[in-house]
Amino acid sequence: MRGGQTRVQDEPAIILLSGGLDSVTALAWAQAEGYAIRAALSFHYGQRHERELQAATAIAAHYGVPQQVVELAPIRGSRLTGDGAIPQGRDLAGLTETIAPTYVPNRNMILLAYAAAHALLGDATQLIGGWNAADGANYPDCRDEFLRATETALRLATLRHFTIVRPLIRDGKAAIVRRALALGAPIPLTWTCYVGEAPACGSCDACQLRLDAFRQVGVRDPLPYAVDLEWVGCRPYAETG
Amino acid sequence: MRGGQTRVQDEPAIILLSGGLDSVTALAWAQAEGYAIRAALSFHYGQRHERELQAATAIAAHYGVPQQVVELAPIRGSRLTGDGAIPQGRDLAGLTETIAPTYVPNRNMILLAYAAAHALLGDATQLIGGWNAADGANYPDCRDEFLRATETALRLATLRHFTIVRPLIRDGKAAIVRRALALGAPIPLTWTCYVGEAPACGSCDACQLRLDAFRQVGVRDPLPYAVDLEWVGCRPYAETG
Repeated sequence: MRGGQTRVQDEPAIILLSGGLDSVTALAWAQAEGYAIRAALSFHYGQRHERELQAATAIAAHYGVPQQVVELAPIRGSRLTGDGAIPQGRDLAGLTETIAPTYVPNRNMILLAYAAAHALLGDATQLIGGWNAADGANYPDCRDEFLRATETALRLATLRHFTIVRPLIRDGKAAIVRRALALGAPIPLTWTCYVGEAPACGSCDACQLRLDAFRQVGVRDPLPYAVDLEWVGCRPYAETG
Repeated sequence: MRGGQTRVQDEPAIILLSGGLDSVTALAWAQAEGYAIRAALSFHYGQRHERELQAATAIAAHYGVPQQVVELAPIRGSRLTGDGAIPQGRDLAGLTETIAPTYVPNRNMILLAYAAAHALLGDATQLIGGWNAADGANYPDCRDEFLRATETALRLATLRHFTIVRPLIRDGKAAIVRRALALGAPIPLTWTCYVGEAPACGSCDACQLRLDAFRQVGVRDPLPYAVDLEWVGCRPYAETG
């Protein structure tokens, strides 16, 4: 409360925290804005890169937010959940896919539906996440129009006035790296690689997008990678703080 | 196909089959209408009355529809999933609840989200279920407006033109019993009781609504009950066929 006015941040919130760069940036933003974060929810849904859950746990601990890992039924039908290999070394600039092979069928609706069910156990009315414009390009369940429709469905299903908070919805990956740096997000704790074996592969779609974003920003990614990387003209991460 | 025209029934479908009277009636209707039913999905979400899943299996076998039981993360926060006792002997006519204590938080959005994910493994575009006006009274996630919003969200999330088929959406429980009888649905195979121990208790909300519906229709419910029941003026079920 401030001057008798209720600020949106005072409404209790839950954050969906995968452990990747996007959700940690959303969490850093929410902390900086003063959101009352009741819990961080992370989901095990059969992803190969379940290592991201360790990252999520470390990030939640960094911010002192209670974390819960929800064990979901595996979501089949994706390269990310074991059906086919993780694509490596693709020329992402040349792609014209409507849906990426790493799309996990209807994942975000499943995660949001569970997050709302969890929220109903307490008083949270806001669901915060790192959905962004870069992912929206070929993951339809990351787009603003999907999130708006789901917000409506959630309110009707629960009679609670849920808001889906999406601070990164207009951001590309470089913008997210800039915001993560500006917010002092614990980038070294994050996990992005789809393969899920340390060190990160550096050539799956997710690694490529991440590395490209750091290069655009002119900063070295602090994570170790399994391959030698080109960082011409980039500052070390340690000099950004 | 008929005369080159695509009928809606020719679009492959999945049915959400709980094993209760509503979903079996929806399945009987879909079979009579000639829907191409690819699978019946039943969900284990920590419900006390998991016995309904055996009923669902028997019903799917009756119709020769392949069934799959999906093991979901338990949905907490409901009398149905272990938080508090199942209400017994309530005067349902006198209730003014907005949401019943047996509401399972956001259950139908979770089930529909998983059903759509499952459908994406194959070619199904229609999700059929037994949502109805009686349940809609105090289970908001059974209402038409929720189903419409979820249909929109599903289409946006998946880029598949899903339709949520809800043949009972205007029906009360007596209307459903009438339709089940008319369609020859295997009513003796169904399970309704929230307590989940055979024979059915006869006094939980679900048993009461079911028994009341049969009495309104003037037919004896063929299920055995743990208590003596009044069937004045009702025909035996066996005489309805």
